[in-house]
Amino acid sequence: MFSVAEATARVLATAAPLPAEQVPLTEAAGRILRADLTADRDFPPFARVTMDGIALAHAAFAVGLRTFPLEATQFAGEAPHSLRDPQAAVEIMTGAVLPPGTDTVVRYEDLTIRSPTAGSRIATLNPGLVLTCGQAVHRQGADRQAGDVLLPIGTRLSPAALAVAATIGSASVSVTRRARVAVVGTGDEAIPFTENPLPHQIRRSNGLMLQALVQQAGATADVFHLPDDADQLRQALPALLKGYDVVVLSGGVSKGRADLLPTVLREAGAEEIFHEVAQRPGKPLWFGQYPGGAVVFGLPGNPVSSFVSAVRYVRPWLRAASGQAPAPSEGAVLTEAVTFAPPLTYFLPVRLVSGPNGQLLATPQRDGGSGDLALLLTADGFLELPAARSAFAPGAVLPLLRG
Amino acid sequence: MFSVAEATARVLATAAPLPAEQVPLTEAAGRILRADLTADRDFPPFARVTMDGIALAHAAFAVGLRTFPLEATQFAGEAPHSLRDPQAAVEIMTGAVLPPGTDTVVRYEDLTIRSPTAGSRIATLNPGLVLTCGQAVHRQGADRQAGDVLLPIGTRLSPAALAVAATIGSASVSVTRRARVAVVGTGDEAIPFTENPLPHQIRRSNGLMLQALVQQAGATADVFHLPDDADQLRQALPALLKGYDVVVLSGGVSKGRADLLPTVLREAGAEEIFHEVAQRPGKPLWFGQYPGGAVVFGLPGNPVSSFVSAVRYVRPWLRAASGQAPAPSEGAVLTEAVTFAPPLTYFLPVRLVSGPNGQLLATPQRDGGSGDLALLLTADGFLELPAARSAFAPGAVLPLLRG
Repeated sequence: MFSVAEATARVLATAAPLPAEQVPLTEAAGRILRADLTADRDFPPFARVTMDGIALAHAAFAVGLRTFPLEATQFAGEAPHSLRDPQAAVEIMTGAVLPPGTDTVVRYEDLTIRSPTAGSRIATLNPGLVLTCGQAVHRQGADRQAGDVLLPIGTRLSPAALAVAATIGSASVSVTRRARVAVVGTGDEAIPFTENPLPHQIRRSNGLMLQALVQQAGATADVFHLPDDADQLRQALPALLKGYDVVVLSGGVSKGRADLLPTVLREAGAEEIFHEVAQRPGKPLWFGQYPGGAVVFGLPGNPVSSFVSAVRYVRPWLRAASGQAPAPSEGAVLTEAVTFAPPLTYFLPVRLVSGPNGQLLATPQRDGGSGDLALLLTADGFLELPAARSAFAPGAVLPLLRG
Repeated sequence: MFSVAEATARVLATAAPLPAEQVPLTEAAGRILRADLTADRDFPPFARVTMDGIALAHAAFAVGLRTFPLEATQFAGEAPHSLRDPQAAVEIMTGAVLPPGTDTVVRYEDLTIRSPTAGSRIATLNPGLVLTCGQAVHRQGADRQAGDVLLPIGTRLSPAALAVAATIGSASVSVTRRARVAVVGTGDEAIPFTENPLPHQIRRSNGLMLQALVQQAGATADVFHLPDDADQLRQALPALLKGYDVVVLSGGVSKGRADLLPTVLREAGAEEIFHEVAQRPGKPLWFGQYPGGAVVFGLPGNPVSSFVSAVRYVRPWLRAASGQAPAPSEGAVLTEAVTFAPPLTYFLPVRLVSGPNGQLLATPQRDGGSGDLALLLTADGFLELPAARSAFAPGAVLPLLRG
């Protein structure tokens, strides 16, 4: 039986980046870049005025000048006016190009403008004003230079990244194609959730849960349900194994007589990479790969087992296959003593709160076991309690798996 | 000029929950519930077997019995077999109803099954086995009782919440209608990002950024661009103020001569609630409301100002209008000394990392000012440095605004 670390390594070893595709930037939110995006111009592309006011030459101020005739008014988006008289100034707006011949901007609050004759305007600086050469000017290339890689391969297109891509004119971008996932529920006890169950039946819920989970991770997901019947499984599985990047099954991987999937998957040509992981919940986890086709996660059917296994193994696979670097690891502080004796990694459901000293505090939630679906409603995530230890004291810092 | 706290209070005071609508559960991921969802049955709805093996009466074990003829095999989803002979057992699968007459499940690993004659099967428990009455049975109602509120009003439909809703048969759910947001860029210097700018022009980026930001918050967003021209603004604004829940403008709210929006918005009938907030970046922020129509955020046009203002004010408004409780506050630890003298709240761009003792560590990023769009690429969020203090020591815990 594999440890969680071994299982993780085997899962991630199968995750090569999926093919790239070109999409318009307007449809690229959340997608993962497959080519560096470089600055086509300096950032900013010109000496950019950052306040509304007047632009002047600091040298004129330095020799004592405090009154400046205004040669022009220049708005953002206009070609720059070149200062003709070095002792004059240009009225200027935020976002405009700094007029050639000027180097410093004085904001409106620090001056008054009067109009002694029709058509003439003169700005007078406030008494005692201190003026730094270059003030209120964002100089060309101050932030980034033309040719700099702004968004490297593997970047997720966040709102800010989209803005940067737009600024450099990336009207379309190369991104990783979304993973295509088949989510397959099993279990004859589970009827569609739109129907009324008999007393011994339950409604299906894992399909919807797993679909939402993989969609959050950027994949597309179709949901299927297959009966606990070897013939029907044998008939249905090949198309899924060939047609999808990932097949996520839930249920049917344990030791019961209805747990047909490990056998049927092998018969269908999927190669088993591991079956069973030293963890709770989720010990019966099955993982394999169809040569030239899908990777296959056989998640235990209990809702909490399915959820934890999807978050712990499927989500990192999808992230790796998207071309992103692994998520940075995160720790949280256990607030109560916990004992867990079996030699298994225990995923302890916890509620998270940001503590007064900036620590992330994790409080264990009542754990009704792997069938306790409602437990997931009060848990923000799981602490990963290593198999090698059984007693965990309050204050222990442990790896966090967010839900 | 309002403080950040006052501005926040004024913004949130306008955020009544938007109307509710009924949607199929299959399309409800991420939506916010507008009616409690209660358990239609106990959780679990019957005494549920949690291991594959045999079900027996513990009383028989207690009087010394170790060998049990198997009366039947019962799979999950089947109506339960009632034990006829209290000294016999039923072969049973995970997820099945506990057979009436039995109370305890022994897993396969702890027994052997043989078939002395065709059609008869006998299970023998392993020598020395300890058996607890009720083991491997998830008793009816152990997690939740029928009638319990499982998902209260205001719950966001996470993958786990969707699963719970499915389990209780909520085929469609009442959720808050998505907020309809008009994102309106301004600024004559900004051309479409699909075009090549002249040296004094830049490409538009705020529209795409703000659209992605409000979509992440669950809203729909249409993007517009309007010129710095009073007549054209006057003509275009009324339809937006009447047709959307929120109008998010960027640019045109500062003190320059091209900053026409405060005046034109008032002329169009929008009531100003505040203009200017004691913060950097984003001081010129304008906020108002069109009676019977949209709330209006006039964000400063510099990209970083727009971004921070959207995250700090627009996003909480959308959250409140969705019917969710405010996001829990979060703090992070400053890793370097920072000085900021002006009497303004300073949103310090930071990179976040989870520290070895479970603290969230925030490292200041180079801050090129409100025009430094590329800065947003290295910042995971902003620490909110209060206006009343100017020196912040390493180790200080400060409120965190995630990007």
